[in-house]
Amino acid sequence: MSEFNLHAKLAEDCFFIGALPLSDLLLLNDTRYPWCVLVPRVMGLTELMQLDAVQAQSLFAEIRLVSNILAKQPGVTKLNVGALGNLVPQLHIHVLGRSPSDAAWPGPVWGYGEAQPYSSQKSHQAIHQWRGLLGDDLVG
Amino acid sequence: MSEFNLHAKLAEDCFFIGALPLSDLLLLNDTRYPWCVLVPRVMGLTELMQLDAVQAQSLFAEIRLVSNILAKQPGVTKLNVGALGNLVPQLHIHVLGRSPSDAAWPGPVWGYGEAQPYSSQKSHQAIHQWRGLLGDDLVG
Repeated sequence: MSEFNLHAKLAEDCFFIGALPLSDLLLLNDTRYPWCVLVPRVMGLTELMQLDAVQAQSLFAEIRLVSNILAKQPGVTKLNVGALGNLVPQLHIHVLGRSPSDAAWPGPVWGYGEAQPYSSQKSHQAIHQWRGLLGDDLVG
Repeated sequence: MSEFNLHAKLAEDCFFIGALPLSDLLLLNDTRYPWCVLVPRVMGLTELMQLDAVQAQSLFAEIRLVSNILAKQPGVTKLNVGALGNLVPQLHIHVLGRSPSDAAWPGPVWGYGEAQPYSSQKSHQAIHQWRGLLGDDLVG
């Protein structure tokens, strides 16, 4: 596995929560939704289908882990999972919680309106909370 | 596994291509994109995370199978995979091919504009072509 570098656009738009076995887990800087992004640390991937069976198994476990936490966030009644990559080619998987009262409901969140960034304090709180909930599932 | 019934909205919006080991494979009735939908034949599922590890492995294999065919369709340069379900609760996974010249590019396809239905002849051709390409991967 060659050295992994996060795409500049993902680095710009997200906070780093921590490393899971396959993927880096990011928090999208948009308070409108509890919105995570998983980025498998394998250089050169652009499509889900490029993951081998073992990597896919890890990714699914990580989607489930993040989903279980998101499902318990206030107001969340539905999860959305998507691998699009029309703008950022590096393979990344969106996992986010939706609510019938959220900005884009029932439409998709991608490309909808303007992100509402976290304050510095709120982002630190959110990341701290995520790291606490993930506990030993984090590898870094 | 209790008897599986396809949600009425999916039945209305899609053609049945065939059965894969876990999922029914549907073709969305919208000629703007080559757009498939996988519906695991397990009643009561609404979220990806409810799949067990074996089902998830099957689903991933089916996403890969469909992705490989979609990636060879004329003009397709990117795949989009999404499990949303904001409008139709039955778990279903969209797998579709995108092109920089398609209607919604680079935005998401969900909720964008109006579907352009297949003619009866074109839908039969498309389903026949899919069934030929899937061959022995179909179980029904």
